[in-house]
Amino acid sequence: MTARITDPLNGEGLRDIWPILVDEERAEGFALLVDDDAESFFSSLPPSDQSAILQHLPHAKASMWMRFLAPDDAADVLQAIEPEHRARLRAMLDEGTRREVDALLAYEEDAAGGLMSPRFVRVRPDVSADVAVRYVRQQTRTNPETLYYIFVLDAGQHLKGVMSLRELFAAHPDTIVADVMNKEPVSVTESTDQEDVARLIEQHDLLAVPVLDEHGRMRGIVTVDDIVDVIREEATEDIHKLGGSEALGAPYLDVGFLSMLKKRGGWLSVLFLGEMLTATAMGHFEDEIAKTVVLAMFIPLIISSGGNSGSQAATLIVRSLALEELRLRDWFRVLFSELRTGAALGAGLGALGFLRVVLWQRMGIFNYGEHYMQIAATVWLSLIGVVMFGTLTGSMLPFLLRRLGFDPATSSAPFVATLVDVTGLIIYFTIAALILSGTLL
Amino acid sequence: MTARITDPLNGEGLRDIWPILVDEERAEGFALLVDDDAESFFSSLPPSDQSAILQHLPHAKASMWMRFLAPDDAADVLQAIEPEHRARLRAMLDEGTRREVDALLAYEEDAAGGLMSPRFVRVRPDVSADVAVRYVRQQTRTNPETLYYIFVLDAGQHLKGVMSLRELFAAHPDTIVADVMNKEPVSVTESTDQEDVARLIEQHDLLAVPVLDEHGRMRGIVTVDDIVDVIREEATEDIHKLGGSEALGAPYLDVGFLSMLKKRGGWLSVLFLGEMLTATAMGHFEDEIAKTVVLAMFIPLIISSGGNSGSQAATLIVRSLALEELRLRDWFRVLFSELRTGAALGAGLGALGFLRVVLWQRMGIFNYGEHYMQIAATVWLSLIGVVMFGTLTGSMLPFLLRRLGFDPATSSAPFVATLVDVTGLIIYFTIAALILSGTLL
Repeated sequence: MTARITDPLNGEGLRDIWPILVDEERAEGFALLVDDDAESFFSSLPPSDQSAILQHLPHAKASMWMRFLAPDDAADVLQAIEPEHRARLRAMLDEGTRREVDALLAYEEDAAGGLMSPRFVRVRPDVSADVAVRYVRQQTRTNPETLYYIFVLDAGQHLKGVMSLRELFAAHPDTIVADVMNKEPVSVTESTDQEDVARLIEQHDLLAVPVLDEHGRMRGIVTVDDIVDVIREEATEDIHKLGGSEALGAPYLDVGFLSMLKKRGGWLSVLFLGEMLTATAMGHFEDEIAKTVVLAMFIPLIISSGGNSGSQAATLIVRSLALEELRLRDWFRVLFSELRTGAALGAGLGALGFLRVVLWQRMGIFNYGEHYMQIAATVWLSLIGVVMFGTLTGSMLPFLLRRLGFDPATSSAPFVATLVDVTGLIIYFTIAALILSGTLL
Repeated sequence: MTARITDPLNGEGLRDIWPILVDEERAEGFALLVDDDAESFFSSLPPSDQSAILQHLPHAKASMWMRFLAPDDAADVLQAIEPEHRARLRAMLDEGTRREVDALLAYEEDAAGGLMSPRFVRVRPDVSADVAVRYVRQQTRTNPETLYYIFVLDAGQHLKGVMSLRELFAAHPDTIVADVMNKEPVSVTESTDQEDVARLIEQHDLLAVPVLDEHGRMRGIVTVDDIVDVIREEATEDIHKLGGSEALGAPYLDVGFLSMLKKRGGWLSVLFLGEMLTATAMGHFEDEIAKTVVLAMFIPLIISSGGNSGSQAATLIVRSLALEELRLRDWFRVLFSELRTGAALGAGLGALGFLRVVLWQRMGIFNYGEHYMQIAATVWLSLIGVVMFGTLTGSMLPFLLRRLGFDPATSSAPFVATLVDVTGLIIYFTIAALILSGTLL
């Protein structure tokens, strides 16, 4: 027992030191919790932590906790565990649950089938409300956690309708279930993507949604608490991608050094190789730089402004696409809007840049030479061009990726910035050549 | 009636063309929907859209829909509407609801008080389960949407316990409520931030959480469906900030031109002013650039690599702080981890840069002069320094902001990139001076 864990321990205390403990210590600390405290602590852990401590608990305790889990949660634990321990933990389940869990493990993790619980409350359409209440009461006694809605199934397990317990409650005892139930229930199939399940549950304010197989037979339910996790996970993935790395897929401190390098180094190398084109572009303008060193001073300022405005646009559009505020066919409206916004932003930033050159010259802070007004004009016009190109690239790339079937979030802010850096140099030196030729160039 | 809306219209069809309609057309289209279809369509709209169509419906229809809304949703609609129409819509509510709505409007929009519904099911602790079931049935007949949990209140409205309908159901009819209920219910206060409410509901897998005033009296409940919206909203805000703009606070296409300029131009200008320091820094190295133009070629490559690695680190840390995977006291572990990761990433990218210079020289693609090996070494060492500085700044700035009481998401990726650009130039030219002095400089 490590000195870092002090008795008496409660869940709150353990949660506080949780991040600094290794798996063995976590299991030891958890074993000290009692009753309700242990249950609520265990339930609140993500599957990866649950599986980590289950591996280090004595067999009897581990069995007890495996059996405590609902089938969908047990499946998540088995999915999170290292393969060599999977069989041992799976064997701890009672046979009925094991069969349910095996069925769940066959589904894609991010589809409705992989999220669903196979336990739900069912009644027949032709019984009276009074009889239905008795059936429901019977079913919830053994599995009280399963009562979200009451699903009305025919003899072939086809979903005919759905009602809430409160609707059943409010009905006259002699009414037939078929007359009370909602006959057009919202449902998903086993392969529906979890993001779509989340959107449906959100749109209809549901507590759970039924999952049907290809023959319309009901296989389980996905509940709103699983969806809350899905929404956070998907947002985290998008944020990581927008930041220019692969989605970590685990809490920051749980990601090992090599795995961290792989997830971040991959994209950084791609960006680096792309950014090498700036060196190539600069090579073409070597003579101009040699002649007018002062031009080089504004390179970082100009290309980063394009990158910033591009990152901004990309981020806004990627999020709007993810929330379905924007659809593919809106691309033209966005194009128009971004060109206008880009022109205005570029003109504004350009004015600041122009002022900087003129003021520094007049106040004697820096000497840009006798043609400083042309330099200032070059900076202004370049910023309009570069910022417009940034907003254009940043806003259209997510649409293009979506159209090609990729995740728009991959058009990460750094990726757009890199694209714009290279083009920004070309825009800058082209405008410089136009304005300064005959004087400085 | 516009030609774009074709009868017969259903909710699905209307949803498809929704984004291209103006408010009047939306109201007209909505008025064509019937019964369940209209109800489910109206319920699925965000408050801003609900308020927009309510303004354009005939008085009788608008009244009907205002009364259809639960008090918390009605409050959201009144909050979303332009002030000059607020009084008219408010007057459509029946007096009891109006009083409830007024009370809700007094709360901060992003605190538990602003999210809660004042309607919930309550029983006394000293009644039998049988009597409680009758009470609950009575209360849910008039307000069937309020039954998430059964709250046990004493005569002073103090919260004594909570139980689910299924627990009440499963209890023996003669048991006293006080013996069945959970005596330590999770609760929040009226001023609890919505993010904290969301985390609590998520952690304990609740369907609703009770809201207490400062005297421990129960005022309402926040339900899981409102929390789903909160989680999406907060993720969207963070994403927008990380992308370097203010949170838009509305769907992209609903944001007007001037408002869009303001939300994006503000941060872009700040970044631009910061980035001006690069021009100042470059000014100090004017002589070096004039002597060795080839040094300028690598400026964009080197500073953007620092920016990219910084953005990456900032994004990962900001998200981890938001998810509470990381706490303030973890800063030192993160510091260590990021320095190590930065050193490895910088060494890797630096090797690519070194190879580029050497290969281009040997293959005759570009002539970096006779001292190309020193140039290549400068690039390599600079990349290690710049990338390490990037990961350091990107990872520590979010901690610093959180420590100072600001939102870590404000340490947007572009903001970190700008900081790193300026420092990156200084690192690059300092290393160049060390390696090249005596030969090129």
